[in-house]
Amino acid sequence: MTVLEFPIIQGRGFRNVVEDGRVTGFSFRLRNPNYRGGPASMLDGIEVVVDGERIPDHLPLWTLQGRTFTLDELRASTDVRWQLDEPATITVPKPGGLSVGVHRLEATVYLRRSYFPPPIARSEFAIAGSGVIVPPVPDGGLRYCVSTYSYTGDVYTSMTLEDVFADIADLGATGIEVLGEGNLPGYPSPGAAWIDSWHGLVAEYGLTPTNFGSWVDTTRFSGRDLTAEEGAEQLQQDLRLAKELGFTSVRPKFGVVSWDLDPHPIWEQVVERSLDLAADLDVVICPEIHSPTPIEHPVTQRYVDFIEKTGTEHFKLLIDTGIFQTAAVREAAESLGTDDEDDIPAPLRPLRVPMSDLVEVLPHTHFIQAKFFEIDDSLRDLHVPWGEIVPTLEDAGWSGWLSSEYEGRREPYRGRDQVRRQHALLRSLQQGRG
Amino acid sequence: MTVLEFPIIQGRGFRNVVEDGRVTGFSFRLRNPNYRGGPASMLDGIEVVVDGERIPDHLPLWTLQGRTFTLDELRASTDVRWQLDEPATITVPKPGGLSVGVHRLEATVYLRRSYFPPPIARSEFAIAGSGVIVPPVPDGGLRYCVSTYSYTGDVYTSMTLEDVFADIADLGATGIEVLGEGNLPGYPSPGAAWIDSWHGLVAEYGLTPTNFGSWVDTTRFSGRDLTAEEGAEQLQQDLRLAKELGFTSVRPKFGVVSWDLDPHPIWEQVVERSLDLAADLDVVICPEIHSPTPIEHPVTQRYVDFIEKTGTEHFKLLIDTGIFQTAAVREAAESLGTDDEDDIPAPLRPLRVPMSDLVEVLPHTHFIQAKFFEIDDSLRDLHVPWGEIVPTLEDAGWSGWLSSEYEGRREPYRGRDQVRRQHALLRSLQQGRG
Repeated sequence: MTVLEFPIIQGRGFRNVVEDGRVTGFSFRLRNPNYRGGPASMLDGIEVVVDGERIPDHLPLWTLQGRTFTLDELRASTDVRWQLDEPATITVPKPGGLSVGVHRLEATVYLRRSYFPPPIARSEFAIAGSGVIVPPVPDGGLRYCVSTYSYTGDVYTSMTLEDVFADIADLGATGIEVLGEGNLPGYPSPGAAWIDSWHGLVAEYGLTPTNFGSWVDTTRFSGRDLTAEEGAEQLQQDLRLAKELGFTSVRPKFGVVSWDLDPHPIWEQVVERSLDLAADLDVVICPEIHSPTPIEHPVTQRYVDFIEKTGTEHFKLLIDTGIFQTAAVREAAESLGTDDEDDIPAPLRPLRVPMSDLVEVLPHTHFIQAKFFEIDDSLRDLHVPWGEIVPTLEDAGWSGWLSSEYEGRREPYRGRDQVRRQHALLRSLQQGRG
Repeated sequence: MTVLEFPIIQGRGFRNVVEDGRVTGFSFRLRNPNYRGGPASMLDGIEVVVDGERIPDHLPLWTLQGRTFTLDELRASTDVRWQLDEPATITVPKPGGLSVGVHRLEATVYLRRSYFPPPIARSEFAIAGSGVIVPPVPDGGLRYCVSTYSYTGDVYTSMTLEDVFADIADLGATGIEVLGEGNLPGYPSPGAAWIDSWHGLVAEYGLTPTNFGSWVDTTRFSGRDLTAEEGAEQLQQDLRLAKELGFTSVRPKFGVVSWDLDPHPIWEQVVERSLDLAADLDVVICPEIHSPTPIEHPVTQRYVDFIEKTGTEHFKLLIDTGIFQTAAVREAAESLGTDDEDDIPAPLRPLRVPMSDLVEVLPHTHFIQAKFFEIDDSLRDLHVPWGEIVPTLEDAGWSGWLSSEYEGRREPYRGRDQVRRQHALLRSLQQGRG
């Protein structure tokens, strides 16, 4: 099942409308702003103001219960309703549609109410919000994915798992990344019915399961460290679960033993013991290169050495784009009471890993988590230099998944809006050189 | 299915704990504040501060996946997890528990994270919120119900229908009131599967369906009024739906023809044509006495005359407690830019209907919609004089449903919190004189 977004203007479904190859307008979805549903014949128009441009209330088309109406047709209708649990789609004629990016939307819905005194029976609902137009994915090797991590706090409160699929599909991405110990109810035994429903969603929304987040919690037990055998059990359990759900890679997050995030020494044995299974299942194990560990660092080098030493095809790097950050996240800096980057503790300082380092490890890189924190109304990312990263990936001919990992503020619905902004930005930067 | 509340401290589930007839503490439910689920052995205590009183982190008990643990048991556990979609119940020892009403809660959850550098691996989640302790329903004739209207905006966004049932049952009410054209998916044909699921929820949560909101939209068709025959069709459709779902009354909201909310003249014929069916189904038709129409008013009098003329048992009054309001709703007054009650348009002015008028019509009153707008942290209702209403009902020996109808601001989760406050207030005012 899906649920609706609380804001009356739904973020999902905001798009340009293409007819016969031409963009003829745009459309968006509205939750019924009233406390009851009712006959559509009592709707009396919607005035839309987009980026300050007013569209008179008789022009937009209404799509309700799968049928599309002009205002006159709506008034004359006898067998269609606007239910509380069914959004209306409003289609606004506007040749050329809207530009890629964020748009301010205001609307007034007019509704005749029989139980209001006649002079005021044509009541108004004033609505305001914004939406993000996301362009189609350009040709090239880059494939677009979203991690459920982006929707932390929303999932299980204002989003069902089906909403996650619906949001990702709606913005034109084709991959879904999940957290094993997060999105699998009853983990590690989600049960046959849930697994069936998972495959049903994959088929219905046409998404490809990509990467499966796994944790090797080396301090799981109080008083002693996890053994290599226990660690391998954990990883192998996740490899099997991932395979069963159709994922092609597993990211094990190993416990660490230092400020530099040196992984616990069992990591190498855990991976070695699991490589045959990974090969059997054809699932790639991907340790994550994550701030504060840069690419030019002994930890990353050990992973590369391991790849070269074993010659395996089932152990590769996962790059988190937080390592390319050029500015500290404001909330972190503010909480430390400093504007001076030198005063920020090293783990929170922007690493500014150069593109040349990325180019070097791209041949060993299986997956990219497109970590970000905030993209503003002009589609500027305040922290991550996509204008360098995207061309670098295209120039190198890298083909793989870019998976949105929103890590900014967790107000409800914010991650959903920010992911749309990120895809609008990244796709705009692509030159189709891949 | 149910979903979780976005605030980490869940409003539902906040209660005193009774053991062997003594109140030994209180408990509340927490959504996992982390972005992943994990082994419960990595939890490292929770410090709770309630109304400023600190309870050390090793004292509260944790209930996870149906089993209850001390902190030491939790640390030693190997087969229990705190999943993202499963709340934890925290039980805090405190002889005597908490008083009825609103309490400030702060908490710090401690979690060992293997992938944080060891010196900071015991991480903290600081949580703050509030909860409402609702006392049991006192003996007497008054029965406690909640209308889904209270949760407008929440239903279908942050609440499923099952959450509505769960919230109502959790606060110890026993009745549920719904809006037909609001809460029935596919209205007027919700389908057999949905009807089955409705009866399943009624049984599971032990609630009694009470009143079913219906609308006779006299201006449904553009250009002409509804005929009495069409109006009767609408009402009879709702009577049948209500009966099928177990409801015992239907409130038809007729269109009006004046500022005084005179109902459209078809009302009498619509009711007359439907009375036999109502008697057959044993469902009471209840027109609503709603501000700005007081009790001493020709409209109300015509309803009473109709009851006395027909001698029917299946047409009775529904009183909306907004008619007893003693203060204007601040938001309405503010939007009018005035503090002077005389400047407020009549329909928004508090009616201050006296209790003597209520006493007069109580014998004809089937149902009371306990309309309210805001109850503050001290359980004071800013607008409705419950201190007069509740004793009046008890003294008159009225027995029937008081159904919460929250009509204040519609921020997510606010109605849910306010309904708990209202039940705490109303039950505190009862003297058990009924």
